[in-house]
Amino acid sequence: MSALRPPGGRSIDVACIGNAIVDVLAHTEDSFLDRHGMVKGSMQLIDTEAATRIYADMPPAVEISGGSAGNTAAGVAAFGASAAFVGKVADDTLGAVFGHDIRAAGVEFTTRPATGEGSERGTARCLILVSPDAQRTMNTYLGVAAQLEPDDVEVELVARSSVVYCEGYLWDEPVAKAALRKAMDAAHDLGTPVSFTLSDGFCVDRHRAEFLDLVEHRVDILFANEDEICSLYEVDDFEDAAKRVQGHCAIACLTRSEKGSVILTADGERLDVAAAPTDVVDTTGAGDLYAAGFLAGWSRGEDLATAGRMAAVAAAEVISHIGARPQRDLAELMEA
Amino acid sequence: MSALRPPGGRSIDVACIGNAIVDVLAHTEDSFLDRHGMVKGSMQLIDTEAATRIYADMPPAVEISGGSAGNTAAGVAAFGASAAFVGKVADDTLGAVFGHDIRAAGVEFTTRPATGEGSERGTARCLILVSPDAQRTMNTYLGVAAQLEPDDVEVELVARSSVVYCEGYLWDEPVAKAALRKAMDAAHDLGTPVSFTLSDGFCVDRHRAEFLDLVEHRVDILFANEDEICSLYEVDDFEDAAKRVQGHCAIACLTRSEKGSVILTADGERLDVAAAPTDVVDTTGAGDLYAAGFLAGWSRGEDLATAGRMAAVAAAEVISHIGARPQRDLAELMEA
Repeated sequence: MSALRPPGGRSIDVACIGNAIVDVLAHTEDSFLDRHGMVKGSMQLIDTEAATRIYADMPPAVEISGGSAGNTAAGVAAFGASAAFVGKVADDTLGAVFGHDIRAAGVEFTTRPATGEGSERGTARCLILVSPDAQRTMNTYLGVAAQLEPDDVEVELVARSSVVYCEGYLWDEPVAKAALRKAMDAAHDLGTPVSFTLSDGFCVDRHRAEFLDLVEHRVDILFANEDEICSLYEVDDFEDAAKRVQGHCAIACLTRSEKGSVILTADGERLDVAAAPTDVVDTTGAGDLYAAGFLAGWSRGEDLATAGRMAAVAAAEVISHIGARPQRDLAELMEA
Repeated sequence: MSALRPPGGRSIDVACIGNAIVDVLAHTEDSFLDRHGMVKGSMQLIDTEAATRIYADMPPAVEISGGSAGNTAAGVAAFGASAAFVGKVADDTLGAVFGHDIRAAGVEFTTRPATGEGSERGTARCLILVSPDAQRTMNTYLGVAAQLEPDDVEVELVARSSVVYCEGYLWDEPVAKAALRKAMDAAHDLGTPVSFTLSDGFCVDRHRAEFLDLVEHRVDILFANEDEICSLYEVDDFEDAAKRVQGHCAIACLTRSEKGSVILTADGERLDVAAAPTDVVDTTGAGDLYAAGFLAGWSRGEDLATAGRMAAVAAAEVISHIGARPQRDLAELMEA
C-alpha cells in the first residue's frame, strides 16, 4: 500500500494548534439541556451573558484543562511521543492552570499569553454538561483563545514537526483562521503533512464551502465523526459520505462511536477498526484522543492498522472517566 | 439511652464553619512525597513559594471545590438535610468556583468575600497528592481563608441551626480562631450543640492543650480519627484513647478507616459501626463525609446507630472517586 508516510528527521512528532480551554464539567439530567435550548452532543459558542446564566444554573462542577487540540497533544504525549501545542491563554488563574497541565503532561507549550486589548476576556472556558447516557454537550466561552494570531504560529515549529494537527473550531474566528492558514501554508512549503479535524457538525455547517476546499486541497489526514462527514457532504448515509471523501485526502479517519472507525486512503484502501471495549462515563474528548492515538502511531511510522488500534485504545481510555485528557500511560495500556 | 438530642424548631440542620478551599488534585507516586519531604496522609500549611514549587512539579491536575467543613456541608445537603457554610473566599476565579459549587450543592453560603488588605493572597487552595494506594497528602496555601473573622459569624445563623460544626484547622489562625470562639460562645448561649473535628494529627500537636480544653468543656459532638485521638492523649493505643475521651463529650465519633468507627456517649454507651464496602480511589474527604452523614442523621432525630450507618455510607461514596464532595444523592444511596 502506498499511503502517505511521515517525513523523517523531525524532533516533534505532532504539533497541535487549537483553542486553549479549561473545561467546567458537571453531570446533569437532559432536562437541563432542554431548559437552556441546547442540542445534545453539540458545541455552541456562548457570550459572557450566556456563560454567566448557564454556570449559575449548573450543578457543582470540576475544572479540568481541555480544548480539542490540547487534549490531542496530551494524548500524543501519553503514548510517549513528542508533542507541541499552540494556543492562546490569558495571564489569569485559568491560564496558569491550562499552562501547568499541558506542560506537566509533557507537551511543549510556548505560546505567549494574551496581554493588552481584549485580554480581560480571560482564558477560554467550556461549560460541559454530561448527560446520564455519558454524552457531552459543550458551551464554549472563547475568551482570548480567539486571539490566536499568525505571529503565534512559528514556522520553525512546523519545520521540526512530523505532522501539524489543526482544529476546525479555529475557523470560527478570523484572526485564528489566519493563524491556521499560515500553519498550513508553512507546512506545504516545508513538506510537513497537514492533519485537520472537522470538530463539530454545526461548525461544518458554518464553514462548509471552505472546509470542502480544505479537504480537497490542503488536508493530508482528515478526522471526522459520522455526523460531521455527513454534514460536510450534506448526505444522510455514512457510506455515501465515505465514498465522497475517499480520494480527497491521503488518509481519512472516520469515527462512529461504538461502531468503531473507518480509515480510507487516497489509493482506495479501506480499513475497518473496532472500538475498544470500555464502560462509558463521559464521552468528552473521544474524538480528540482518537486523533492522538492515530497520529502518535502514524507519525512514528506505524502502519494504519496499528495506528487505528492506538486510536481506539486512547478513545476508550478517555471515555472511561470524567475529563477529556488521559489519566493513564497510553503506551503501557497499548501493551496490555 | 440518654445521649444528647438536637434542639427542635431550627431551620438549618447543620451550620459548618471552616476554611474555604479549592482542591488541586493529582495522582503521584510516593517518590513525589519523598522528594518534597511530605508526610503521607497529613496536611501541612505552605507559603506562596512552596505552593509555586510544588505545583510546578505536580502532574496534570483537576480543580474541585473542597475544604473540610465545606465538604461536610455539601455532604449534609446531599442527604437532603439543610446546611449552611461559613468561610472566606477572595473575589477571584477560585472564589467564584468555590461559591458556585457550594451553592449549587444546595448549601446556604453568604459570607462576604475578602476585599482590602491581604485579599490579593487570593482564595485558598490545597495541593493534594493522591498516592497509588489512594491515600491523600495535603499542602494548604491558606490565602484569605485565614481572614475569617468574628464578624463573619452571625449569631442569627447559630440560633437557627440544630448543630454548629467547627473545623480544628481554623485554630491555626488567630483571627479565624476568634471567629470559632464566637460561634461556640453563641452556641452555648443559644442552646445549639457544638460539634468539632480534630482535623489532623499535626494540627492536634500544634494545639493539644487548647483542644483538650475544648473537648472537656465546649464540644458536644467530637469527630476524630485514630491518629488524631491518639495524638490528643499522647497514647499509642486506640482503646486507651477511646477510654480517655469517653465522658468528656456527649458523643464522640472515632473513625478507623476500613476498621469502621466507634461511637461513644458520655453515659457510657459504645457502638461499633462497620465501614461500608467500596473500591477506594481517593481517600480525600473521608472524615468530612463521615461527619456529614452522622450530623445529617443526628440533627434530624435519627438514633446513633442510624446516624453511624449514614456516616459510613457517605464516607464510602466519597472515597470511591476523585474529589472530596459527594457525586451521588446520599439519601437515595442510603435507601439502596
